[in-house]
Amino acid sequence: MSSNPLGEHEIIRIIQSRLTPMPDMPVPFGDDVSAISLGTQTAVLKTDMLVGKTDVPMGMSLFAVARKAIVMNVSDLASKGVVPTAVLAAIGLPKALATKEAVTEIAEGLNAGAREYGAYVIGGDTNETSDLIISISVFGTTLNNPTLRSGAKVGDILAVTGLFGKSAAGLRLLLRDCQAPEEMRKKLVDAVYNPKARLCEGLALCGGYVSASIDSSDGLAWSIHELSQQSGVGFLLDRLPVAVEAEEFAIQNGLDPAELVLYGGEEYELVLTVTPSRWVEAQARVQAVGGCLIPIGKATSTQQVRLDLDGKEVPVVARGWEHFKRQA
Amino acid sequence: MSSNPLGEHEIIRIIQSRLTPMPDMPVPFGDDVSAISLGTQTAVLKTDMLVGKTDVPMGMSLFAVARKAIVMNVSDLASKGVVPTAVLAAIGLPKALATKEAVTEIAEGLNAGAREYGAYVIGGDTNETSDLIISISVFGTTLNNPTLRSGAKVGDILAVTGLFGKSAAGLRLLLRDCQAPEEMRKKLVDAVYNPKARLCEGLALCGGYVSASIDSSDGLAWSIHELSQQSGVGFLLDRLPVAVEAEEFAIQNGLDPAELVLYGGEEYELVLTVTPSRWVEAQARVQAVGGCLIPIGKATSTQQVRLDLDGKEVPVVARGWEHFKRQA
Repeated sequence: MSSNPLGEHEIIRIIQSRLTPMPDMPVPFGDDVSAISLGTQTAVLKTDMLVGKTDVPMGMSLFAVARKAIVMNVSDLASKGVVPTAVLAAIGLPKALATKEAVTEIAEGLNAGAREYGAYVIGGDTNETSDLIISISVFGTTLNNPTLRSGAKVGDILAVTGLFGKSAAGLRLLLRDCQAPEEMRKKLVDAVYNPKARLCEGLALCGGYVSASIDSSDGLAWSIHELSQQSGVGFLLDRLPVAVEAEEFAIQNGLDPAELVLYGGEEYELVLTVTPSRWVEAQARVQAVGGCLIPIGKATSTQQVRLDLDGKEVPVVARGWEHFKRQA
Repeated sequence: MSSNPLGEHEIIRIIQSRLTPMPDMPVPFGDDVSAISLGTQTAVLKTDMLVGKTDVPMGMSLFAVARKAIVMNVSDLASKGVVPTAVLAAIGLPKALATKEAVTEIAEGLNAGAREYGAYVIGGDTNETSDLIISISVFGTTLNNPTLRSGAKVGDILAVTGLFGKSAAGLRLLLRDCQAPEEMRKKLVDAVYNPKARLCEGLALCGGYVSASIDSSDGLAWSIHELSQQSGVGFLLDRLPVAVEAEEFAIQNGLDPAELVLYGGEEYELVLTVTPSRWVEAQARVQAVGGCLIPIGKATSTQQVRLDLDGKEVPVVARGWEHFKRQA
């Protein structure tokens, strides 16, 4: 092979360029989910594959891995304000995992992940593969229009549904790059092993409270850049949503908390924009379901993503996790 | 690992036993597709994963591989009489295939496979894997009840939508176990590389013409046994649907044509049962779309699958392709 392998985004671009677009797609290519209009309602579909080699950190149980495979997909429906109804699981098992114990643990993780969000696993497929593969498809329907990545307007408030950095810190602990006291270690590693999809928050906000939305699984910085690009606006961040534990961890290990928050990935918060006139109501609706909506900046007309550091604006680089290239 | 790896059917049994069943599933676990009632219509979903190591015969182009990944899934919807509308493709690429040429070919194969059956690829996911993985999900809706595997009644006519044995012969040629003259070789290998789903036939028969139906991708014998088990009937076959080319190939290579026909697999015909009173109409409807419906036997009250060989009844063994175990 003479050339370097392509990065994930370039691969997706090539694939999309070769596909005949379905007429009147309710959600364009490249958003968090796909959708089909069924007349009065919209069917929403998402597929996301978990690969043992790249997506499973050290020490994670098969139960947690299978559950996470579902959470990854539910998170995308959550970001569009859509209830997941049904899950299909295509599973690739290496021979060593074709045992009663391993298969039982995977099945229980799938069931737990689906039931946690009100969905059911209704079918699937099993295969023999060299590495563990759990390829999930989630189906849901909605009477509303799914919230796209492209609707942010200048002046909209940029907000997130939680604080960031714990997963990135937990991952570094698992890779043994860093250290933390036992109690903090537990919390940070738990953020990696047991991610939660913000479904209640996404549903509380559906029906026009949000102008644009994405989930943060590819990292906060990448998600904000994606909203920027799809909506044709920029963003000025006036704060970084740093989790207390991530900040402490960063200080103790001589790391920059901003790095953990912006470029962590594998965090399943929603990153969204709200028209200022609906902000109070939006925040109240999320609080009513036990969540929080944290404002972190504003949409601007200059199409750049910048962070206000004590009055000095610095650019937030569009960097994120990408398969093949590792770093885009 | 002290024990042998489990077979595919045992793995599926364990998984199903650990899942909370969705209430009122229109299609039970273990049929060709899964389904969700949406009130006036039924949403139908199928996922099936193509794995490079086990599902791609020698010399098959990436275009053909990607197309086949779709055909495999469409065939299951065809067996239930459901139009495929949309396709999602979760792709795992080894680094060596992360090139513009390879990705383009895969995308074009996916698009061709979907468009051939009127569907569109509307989304997907890409990942880095050690082996090529194409995990397809197909979505469709129907106003009819999907035809299940469980509806065959004693006295129903057992029928297939085409002749068998070419894929099994083609595969042996590719594995260089056997030989064939060039023109026959082309036809047999084409049956492996370019399978067709019997969508027109399946749609022509929906609306109550068929009492039970399955696709033959796991082999004809296995499919008949599955109809038998799910419907609680037996079958007496009075003929084997042998393709001319398969018969010639078998004779030339000293093989049993029945082996190729019954235990080949990777053939995408429909295997179905029809009430005798609707047979003439059913056959006419399939002929009207350019297909054929070949009667091969009858459903019987003794729950066994037997073949009438010149007046002597011999049992048809329940054998088929199974991952992990290779032979069940």
